[in-house]
Parts: sequence; C-alpha cells; structure tokens
Amino acid sequence: MSNTIGQIFRLTTFGESHGEVVGGVIDGCPAGLCLDMNLIQQELDRRRPSRELCGTARHESDEVRFLSGLYEGRTIGAPIAFVVENKDVRSKDYSLNQHTFRPGHADYTYYSKYDHVDYRGGGRASARETVVRVVAGAIAKQLLLTFGIEFVSCVNRIGGIGELFQNYSFEQLKENRNFPLSPDNSLAQYMKNEIAKASAEGDSVGGSCVCVVRGVPVGIGEPLYDKLQARLAYAMLSIPACKGFDYGEGFNAATMRGSENNDAFVASDGRVSTKTNHCGGILGGISTGNDISFRVAFKPTPTIAIKQQTVTDAGEQVEASFTGRHDACVAVRALPVVEAMAAITILDMMLLRNTNTL
Amino acid sequence: MSNTIGQIFRLTTFGESHGEVVGGVIDGCPAGLCLDMNLIQQELDRRRPSRELCGTARHESDEVRFLSGLYEGRTIGAPIAFVVENKDVRSKDYSLNQHTFRPGHADYTYYSKYDHVDYRGGGRASARETVVRVVAGAIAKQLLLTFGIEFVSCVNRIGGIGELFQNYSFEQLKENRNFPLSPDNSLAQYMKNEIAKASAEGDSVGGSCVCVVRGVPVGIGEPLYDKLQARLAYAMLSIPACKGFDYGEGFNAATMRGSENNDAFVASDGRVSTKTNHCGGILGGISTGNDISFRVAFKPTPTIAIKQQTVTDAGEQVEASFTGRHDACVAVRALPVVEAMAAITILDMMLLRNTNTL
Amino acid sequence: MSNTIGQIFRLTTFGESHGEVVGGVIDGCPAGLCLDMNLIQQELDRRRPSRELCGTARHESDEVRFLSGLYEGRTIGAPIAFVVENKDVRSKDYSLNQHTFRPGHADYTYYSKYDHVDYRGGGRASARETVVRVVAGAIAKQLLLTFGIEFVSCVNRIGGIGELFQNYSFEQLKENRNFPLSPDNSLAQYMKNEIAKASAEGDSVGGSCVCVVRGVPVGIGEPLYDKLQARLAYAMLSIPACKGFDYGEGFNAATMRGSENNDAFVASDGRVSTKTNHCGGILGGISTGNDISFRVAFKPTPTIAIKQQTVTDAGEQVEASFTGRHDACVAVRALPVVEAMAAITILDMMLLRNTNTL
Amino acid sequence: MSNTIGQIFRLTTFGESHGEVVGGVIDGCPAGLCLDMNLIQQELDRRRPSRELCGTARHESDEVRFLSGLYEGRTIGAPIAFVVENKDVRSKDYSLNQHTFRPGHADYTYYSKYDHVDYRGGGRASARETVVRVVAGAIAKQLLLTFGIEFVSCVNRIGGIGELFQNYSFEQLKENRNFPLSPDNSLAQYMKNEIAKASAEGDSVGGSCVCVVRGVPVGIGEPLYDKLQARLAYAMLSIPACKGFDYGEGFNAATMRGSENNDAFVASDGRVSTKTNHCGGILGGISTGNDISFRVAFKPTPTIAIKQQTVTDAGEQVEASFTGRHDACVAVRALPVVEAMAAITILDMMLLRNTNTL
Repeated sequence: MSNTIGQIFRLTTFGESHGEVVGGVIDGCPAGLCLDMNLIQQELDRRRPSRELCGTARHESDEVRFLSGLYEGRTIGAPIAFVVENKDVRSKDYSLNQHTFRPGHADYTYYSKYDHVDYRGGGRASARETVVRVVAGAIAKQLLLTFGIEFVSCVNRIGGIGELFQNYSFEQLKENRNFPLSPDNSLAQYMKNEIAKASAEGDSVGGSCVCVVRGVPVGIGEPLYDKLQARLAYAMLSIPACKGFDYGEGFNAATMRGSENNDAFVASDGRVSTKTNHCGGILGGISTGNDISFRVAFKPTPTIAIKQQTVTDAGEQVEASFTGRHDACVAVRALPVVEAMAAITILDMMLLRNTNTL
Repeated sequence: MSNTIGQIFRLTTFGESHGEVVGGVIDGCPAGLCLDMNLIQQELDRRRPSRELCGTARHESDEVRFLSGLYEGRTIGAPIAFVVENKDVRSKDYSLNQHTFRPGHADYTYYSKYDHVDYRGGGRASARETVVRVVAGAIAKQLLLTFGIEFVSCVNRIGGIGELFQNYSFEQLKENRNFPLSPDNSLAQYMKNEIAKASAEGDSVGGSCVCVVRGVPVGIGEPLYDKLQARLAYAMLSIPACKGFDYGEGFNAATMRGSENNDAFVASDGRVSTKTNHCGGILGGISTGNDISFRVAFKPTPTIAIKQQTVTDAGEQVEASFTGRHDACVAVRALPVVEAMAAITILDMMLLRNTNTL
Repeated sequence: MSNTIGQIFRLTTFGESHGEVVGGVIDGCPAGLCLDMNLIQQELDRRRPSRELCGTARHESDEVRFLSGLYEGRTIGAPIAFVVENKDVRSKDYSLNQHTFRPGHADYTYYSKYDHVDYRGGGRASARETVVRVVAGAIAKQLLLTFGIEFVSCVNRIGGIGELFQNYSFEQLKENRNFPLSPDNSLAQYMKNEIAKASAEGDSVGGSCVCVVRGVPVGIGEPLYDKLQARLAYAMLSIPACKGFDYGEGFNAATMRGSENNDAFVASDGRVSTKTNHCGGILGGISTGNDISFRVAFKPTPTIAIKQQTVTDAGEQVEASFTGRHDACVAVRALPVVEAMAAITILDMMLLRNTNTL
Repeated sequence: MSNTIGQIFRLTTFGESHGEVVGGVIDGCPAGLCLDMNLIQQELDRRRPSRELCGTARHESDEVRFLSGLYEGRTIGAPIAFVVENKDVRSKDYSLNQHTFRPGHADYTYYSKYDHVDYRGGGRASARETVVRVVAGAIAKQLLLTFGIEFVSCVNRIGGIGELFQNYSFEQLKENRNFPLSPDNSLAQYMKNEIAKASAEGDSVGGSCVCVVRGVPVGIGEPLYDKLQARLAYAMLSIPACKGFDYGEGFNAATMRGSENNDAFVASDGRVSTKTNHCGGILGGISTGNDISFRVAFKPTPTIAIKQQTVTDAGEQVEASFTGRHDACVAVRALPVVEAMAAITILDMMLLRNTNTL
C-alpha cells in the first residue's frame, strides 16, 4: 500500500517486471512545464546497461509513452500517467527458478507476506521498476533546472577499488557527466577491471556512489521529521539493493572532532554562507544554499552464476545457480536512479516550502 | 508542517527547548495496553547525560505527565497526549548568543526559513525534543515486547576509537544492556578517554552506534517506497546530529562480492531461514524474521568552547565561543533515541501489515 | 495534487475526457482476490446512458484493460493499474466552445487556477472520469461481497417528482436492482416524463438518490475526523455535480424531536441492535451493524441547449447554446458512481479497522 | 488513528470529555502571525451555552492555555499546542449511566470497537471536544482575515420552525453577527419558543444552520477528490450530531432545471464573475471568488429526560432517563464550530494552492 512517494509532487508506480508494462502516475506537477522528451530519453539511456562496463546481455531500449497530463507537450496540472513497455520479457529465463527462493532476493519475503499467491509478486521488487523512477525524476529535474538546480553523480567505490567516503566536487562530476565511474581515469580503469573480474568468475560486486546537487536555495526541508536528509535517506533506501546512505561527512563524522566538522559562517555582500561544507549543504534538516552531497551504498547483485544453497517453496533444500540478464555491479546503473530519487524528493520539498507562508 | 511521524501509530510532537514543556500526542495506539510507567522512566533516565561519560553539567530529571488517552493506566484507543517539563531552562546561558549563528547548528537555516521571526524557532532543532521521542518509543516498545520484540544497542565508534562497521550480536548487546559503550571493556575504556580528552580540550567528538532488533516476524515492511529499511533510515536521519544510516552489511556491502554477501536459505522443520544474516534481517524491503541490525552515525556536538568564526544576524563577522550544558559526544545519549525511533517505526509497519489482508 | 482517494485501499486516477484514455491505479488491494470481470463490466454498463431514460446520443461501450497487479485473474498485492479507452472522443463537438466558459462548468475556475495553460484542463472535471471510479468500486464491491456487504440504490427525486428525503428499504431497492428509478412504478413513470420534458425543452433537470449498504459490521469508522459519515460525505461530494449529502434522517433530523429521532437499543440472544434506524447505521462516526443509508443530491446537467449568457476567455460577453452528448439528468447514471464511491470508502475503513489492534 | 485533520494546516486533537483537559496541536501554521487572544476568547464564548436559548445548567468558562509555538504572541512556524481545562467535570452525573448504552450516543459503538476497554472511550465522542476545534478555527480565521476572508452563520431551522433550505446573504448574517438565530426577529422568537417547549417536555429538538464565507479568491480547491466542497463536507460531517451538508442550491438543486440553476458568467472591467450564485461559490471543486455558502443539519440532542428503552453492557433490557447538563438544541452552539471547521478547511486549501506552482 505504499507504491506512492511524495506529499505534493507524488509518484505512484505500477507494473511487474514480467508483465506487459511498468508505469507511473505523477500527481502535483505544476502546470505549464514544457517537457523535453530528449532529456527524458537521455536519462533512460543512462540507466541502460553498458555492455562495456556491465557485461549484461539484456538489451532494453526503453521508451516512455505518456497517457495523460500533457497538452501540446506541456503539463496542464492534471496527473501525468506514463508507461514503459517491458519489451524483453523472456519469462523462460525466469520460469526455471520460479519455485526456488533466490538468495539475496525478495522471493521468500514476498512469498511469506502475500500468502503464496504468486511467484511473480516479487516482480515489484525487481530493478525493472526503477525505470519508472527515472522517468519521473527526469521530469522533476527539468522543473528544477528552470530554478538552476542540477544533479551530478559518480561511482566512488567498487569492491576493493576506490574510497568509500570519497567526496567529489560538483565541478569534477559535471565534467565527467557522461561517464559513470570515478573522474580519476586510472581509478576508473581499476573499477572496470574489478567488475570484469567478478563477472568472469560468475560473481558480482558491490559499489557505492556519491551525488551532488547544486542550486538548492536556503530554506528547503521541514522540521521535525521531514528533515531534508531524512527524506533523501528514505528515497535512497527505497531503491533496490541500496544498503546505506550518508550525507556531508556522513559516517566519517563519527570519527571527527567538532572543531573539524563544524563549518564556519562567513558573510560577504550581505550574504551568509559556510566556509567549508562538511555539513553537506544541510543544517537542522534545512538546506543552507550550499551544494548538497550524499553517498549511497549498493550491495552486489544477488543473482550470480556461482552455485548457492537455497530452498524451494516446497521446503526442499537445493543448490542452484542463477543466470539471467543481470549486471555484475548495480551501482553503475543506479546513478540515474539515485539522481531521479533526489530530484523527486527535492522538488517535493520545494513545493512544500511554498506552504510555509500564506 | 511535518512534526508528525508514522501512518497508523502516529506521533505528533511540540514544544521548544526553551519553552515551558515539550510534549507529544500519540494517535493510533491500540486500546487495552497497560502502560508500565517504570519502563518509560527507565528509558528517560537512559537518555540523561552520564556525568561519568559525558561531562555535562545539565541535570535533567525528566518526568512525563499524561494528559489524555489513559484510563486506570490502560490505553483506550484515544490519543495519548503527554508533556515533559523543561525544568532547567536557563535562558541566560543562551541569550548571550541569540544574535549569533552557531556553526553546525540550525540557527541560520531556521532564521532564513521562518523570515527572521524568532531566534527561538531553532528551539525545535534542539536535542531537547528527543525526550518526546523516547517517551513515545517506550510505549511502542512495551506494545512490541508483548510480541517478543526487543531492542538493544551500543556505541561502536567514538572519534578514532572502535570500528565504524563493527556489528555486535543481539546477545552481546543484551548482556551489556545497562552500559552504552562497546561490550568490549578495554575498547570502552578507550572510548571514555576519547570523550574526556575532547571535552578537556573544549572540543567534542563524533560517534556511531549499532542497534539490533530481535523478534520481528517475517513479512513486515511495504513495497515499494515504504520498505522497512527506508522507513528506518527516515526515522534515524530525523534525529538531530545524525549523519548516516546503513543496515546489514551496509556500506561494507559496497566492498563485497555477491557470493560473500548473499545469505543462503536453509530449511529446518518446515521453517525457512537464512544461514547468515548479511542482509540485516530485511530482503526486498520486508523482514525475514531474523535479527534486524543497523548503524547510525552522529556528528560531533556542534557546540564547543573552542573559538569559531561566525556571523551575527546583522551580518557581522565575529569570533565566538559557545559554552552551555552540552555533551561532548551525542552518540552516547542517542542510544535510547535510536531505539525509540526504531520501535515507533516497526510498530507502525506492524500495524500497517494488518491492512494487507481483509 | 489530490487525484488519490483512500488511506489503505487507495485509488489514484488519471486521464482527461478528451484524451486517449482515462485510468486508475489501485494500491493496497489485498492479495488473493479472484476478479470477476463480468461484474466489473456490469457496473460499467449501469453507468452507460440509457437511451430510454436519458435521451443521450453518446454510445460508450466502456471496456477496462488491466495493465498490472493481476496474475491469472487474481490480485497479487501489487498495484492494479487499468485504463478505459475514450473511444468516442469527438473533439469537434467541443472545440467550438473551447474559448467560451460554459455556465455551471469548471471551465472558468480551471482556467483561473492553472494559469490559462489549457482549455482541456477541465477535462479532469468531466463526468467521464467517473468511469474509473466505477471500475475501482466494482473491485471494492467484490471484495466486500465476500464479507456479505451489499450496495443498492435508486433515484428518489427528479425535478418536481418524488420526495427528497424518501428512504427506501434495502429489500425494496434490491428487488428493483436493474432499474435506476423509484421502485414505485407510477412514480418512476412520472420521473421518466420529467426527464423527457426537460430534454425536449433543451433543458436539464436535477435529481437525488438514496443508497443503502447492508452487512457492514459494527465498529467501522474512526474517531475523530474520519467518522464513517465524514468519509462518505467526502467521497460523495467529490462526484461531479453532487450538491449535498445526508445520512439516516439527515436534514429531516433538523425538524425532529430527540424522542422521535433516537433509536432504542434492544438486546436479543446476546446481540445488541437498534429497534429503529433513524441514525442510518452510524453512531458517533462508527457503524452500528445496521443498514447504512444516505442520500446524495445532484444538480441539473449544466450543459443545455437553451441559450445562456456567458463570457469568453478574451473577456467578451456572449450568448451561447451548448449541445453535445449529454444526459438531461445526471442523477440516473450517477447511481453506480455513488455505490462505487461508497464501496471504496467502506473497504478502506474496514482495512483501517484492522489497525485498531495489533 | 484519525484525530488529525488537514494536509498542510493540520490540527491534531486529544482529551476526553471527563479527563483533565482537552487540547490540540496545530502544525503548519505559517510563522509571523500575531495572535489576538481576545478573538479566540470571543469564539470560545460564542460556543458557551446561552442560558436564554439553551436552558443548560452547565457553566463552562473555557480558557485556552498555549504550551508551545508562540513567542511574544506571534507564531514562529513551530507546532502550536494548547489545552483547555475541563473545569466542570462532574463525573457523578455520568457515572450512574456508565453501564447503560445511551440511545443516539456512541456508547455502544465505541464499546464494540475498542473491546470494552473503557466506558469513557466515548469521551472522545462528546461535544466537549469541539472546544478544541473552536480554538484552532479562531487561529485560522485570524490568518484568513488578513486576506479579507470572513465567516458568518445562523440557525435557519429549528424543529418545525424556519425553512431548511433558506439561504441568507452575507450582509444579513454579518449584521446579525452576535445573535445565533435567524435575522428575522419574529422567526427567531418562534425558534426560541420551539427550544423552550422541547426543553420543558424533557425532550430536545434538531436544527440546521447556514454559513457564508466571503473573500475566498478564485482558484481554491483541488481536483479530483479534494474538491473544496468535498473537504467542507468532510469537515462538517466530522462534527458530533451533524447529519447532512449541502452547498449552494444543495438538495434544492435536485428539484430544479439547468436553466434555473446555472449561473450566467458576466464580465466587467476585465473581471469575470457570475450573475447569480446558485453554485454556492464553487464550480468543479474550485472557488469562483463569489461567496461560498453551505448548510449543515444537526440532529436533536440525544440526551433527553424522557424515558427510553435501552440495553446495559451486561445485555439487560432497561428503561432509562438521562439527565445532565445538555442543551435542548445543539445547532445553536454549533455555529462557532461550523465556522471553525470551515476556516480550518479553507486555510488548508489556500496553503495547498501555493503548491500548484513552483
């Protein structure tokens, strides 16, 4: 009962990974926005598996089809419904395993929660549904861009390569915009190798990424529970395979002194800002006007070719190997999803702020 | 507009740190629960500063007073309102600084958001409000305990001491119940010294903690956005000074292989469980029935005696030193708050699950 | 931002009357319900204009197409998305008037609210969207029927014919199930004539209807604001053209004495019930277990052939006559919509009740 | 779980009629409003029983005490908590009947819903809780008045006296501001007699009232379910003893022709308005800018001295007479409650409208 996210800019999603379509309905998008369909497609393409990086054999050329809410390409204040066809449903790939609980997947928990109704219930738990988030996020981004708000991101750690709590600047990441891995070329090369190695061994590998948002004005975020970081954390941890979130110095702050971590305030030309940005652009749950930076950890893809011990829905203990069209490292394709969820969240909070005054 | 948390078991809070009281209203608590007032007081006492550990001079003996929702000590299905007096408001301590934006605090962002109305608006951003969370959490815990659900926690890192991603078992933490630091005695001693050293230097220090929840049945958590981990992350990041959340292997999973991180399913006596618990008791957003474990990072207390550069609300650049009744390490007192927010969240999700079937 | 209704059983709708489709997403429908597609079609057919009664020339044979949430005809706990094609969009009929604010319609208010973006924004205000409510309601009804809950209704007043506050018994209405007008044959004949007369004169006529729900158990409805009658009133007043709602004795109660209006309690075989049912099956916002009865008033169709004074979006004063495929009396076709909204509301409240205890 | 109303301007209430206090928390009130405590007291006094009209012996001099959210008399954006003491709790009056289900009251339904926990659970169903609505409404009204929005109302029918669907103009009602009955003096005298007669006979009498809101700008109200009239209906039907709601021509519209009921649009000085206001200031769920008018029906007070047949919680059939400090006609004291709920609703919708654009 919670396939909706947001209070004002609200996304409701539907569709199983092995069904005909996945789709969404956006309610609360202000009227008058001219949608640039190319920008939406670009984000969808960023989400496609890169043959080079991910070694997946699945070819999805996702195309969004709008069912409502637009008139001559502009939003009209009515709900924007859209679907993306699941072109490449090869159920045979999956049917073999449909009575076996895949380790690391939601098969068993969905099976338990929904009274054994359907082995496809878990279709909602599939990464396939993130395509809907990307479409909604691309719309949110366009609206935010008209206010000068931009999102950039990269993978900063894959398996043994890179630093977990490495932060990159907005400029570094923007320059690197079309490449998902670290802006440091040699590090990026090691990352590629790490993925390739895991893939070659029939295994997968985890990764984490960093996202930076520039241009959010001061004053966004709501006390007490709807702190901006709380809403971002919620949005990120709702992404499949996400295992953690931190912002600013994040976990690193646990190792620091107050005198190191505090950001001095400076005034210039009547404008207040912080000298450093250890706080990640948020103080007391409310944006400072500085760059908002956060990190998100992803577990290794649970579907691996290596044999694993598991159980069938009949309670039999078995060994099984799961193949399919899966990426060895989900973090790489997660970047547009992370940005999309951040955009949806920040847009919602910006609209909410409009209610702080009459 | 977001001083309420929860969908079914809903907590609304009120009160400024320097006002007369802080308080809350719990809506949606099932009728018929006999409240044990001693258990509530115990949790409140855990939240009090330990002179030994924290070196704070503030003496709060918090007492909760119930205004509604109880009859002869039992909940009746009506909203439970309560207040906790702010006994020790020494506004003089604070008034000196009321025109100066404290680095690391919400003064500036609240000032900007609420149109400069009040220097006390930030009173909502104070750690004082967490006392209300602890009361509500103590009630949630009591209800959950009747279902065999228990919460334990400890600090696993303070400044340079301890391991950020150290997990402790439920048993270890339960045995260590009355002590907030690591169950490893010598490590705990180092932690104490770390706090004392920071305090002596007029500084503060960050910390992180781990929480384990035992007894949550399989099937708790809602797809798609209300994944159990998403709701937990939201709850944790809403706590003042919290900088990060991860669960199970968390950020560590970014460094792992799928074959390491996946938990094999095993069947015994017709019951399915996982051999290991790298997933932290949650798969696909839904509880597996195993222990739920997560970690929360806290920044160093921003109020420090060391001089810092900052700005007044008149835009003047100044240097200021802030003293007051503040702990050198908030993570220590945060434990009952972390457990409280976990309890509020899990109870809410358990009540929500009741709506999955008619 | 409010194209969603319900807390647990939640319907989100989309689609403009002159777009390709209208549709909806149902979130929170329990898993395991076998959908009877014939029952859904029956409700859709009840909503079609009756040539005999309404004299409309529009022929809609609405067919629902499900996009998600079903597996082999059963609900799986995932969101149920569906669309209904707008087969008969003859935009030419409408385009003539697209710059003229139709009296009694939402043209002017939508135009003002949404910054003049689109003359089709009002497409959401069209009665066309009620087809989506009927589909969702048909699903809710099926689920409720498994608990023995049934909905019946009829028109009790049209223009000068019939009594506004006439109540009919569940039995009377059930026997009359396939006929929308009063169970009193001669009265029904007068009603038909009233519609025919208005239609012949290029005019329209108002009407009101009564709905009775049998089988709702005692205890449904939530204090304080989510009283069952408050949620029903909300649902009814959200239907286009609806002008009023009352339940039990309703407005009539304003003319009564307490000794007349109170329902005596009687006990038999350990079961408590009320001797009479002036209260309409609800006391203190909570169902008594007796039949729930309420009435809904509809205004005359605003689109009429008679010339009216109005204004264009350029601010010119004009006289205009509006024709189109419109019914002379919306109350007749509103019956399945009224029942659908009642079913959606009552199902939601039944699921909510499950959260009153753990 | 629904003791909260509103999306942005949110009121959460608590307190049983026989407890120490009733109270509320307002979240989402914009910062910077200077509260005029006299205006709040005035509204509270309007809600007090008039000895002349109501013949009640209860003397409540309600005083509100604010616990949070104000600084030097101004709102600061933080939650506004307040309590009103239940000074005159004479539990003995009630205790006699505590095992007997009072006809027309919520005793039996609460008893059933909350598992027999407490005979005082019904304390939430008492009219006492409306005092909290009046306080919150008085705050909403003050904020709305700064935008020129005003609320007036009167009783238009009591028992056999007056017309149910009588509308009065804003001017008539404003002139009559300090008197709750009809502005027609002789009619008002008949109404008084009707109440006195019912009271003298140990009985009670129903009544209905009309409320007019002037100054709401065009564009308030949200499609599709949050139509302004739907939210008003919800708010009104949540008031104890309320049995019906209609707006504009309301139920009367069911008896009219479209050509009578439609309001012609007229343009003057570039401003569009309607010549008549049969629509009650709302079209398509959105305000037109004209006066919003609606009516609310109240049942007769269920507590009467006349003997009634009823049942005890032990299932025994008894005859009982209920006395206490009750008004013979609740409609009279309901006026400030009706206005308060309208103000809370309209303010919420006005704040929501701010989210329609970025």
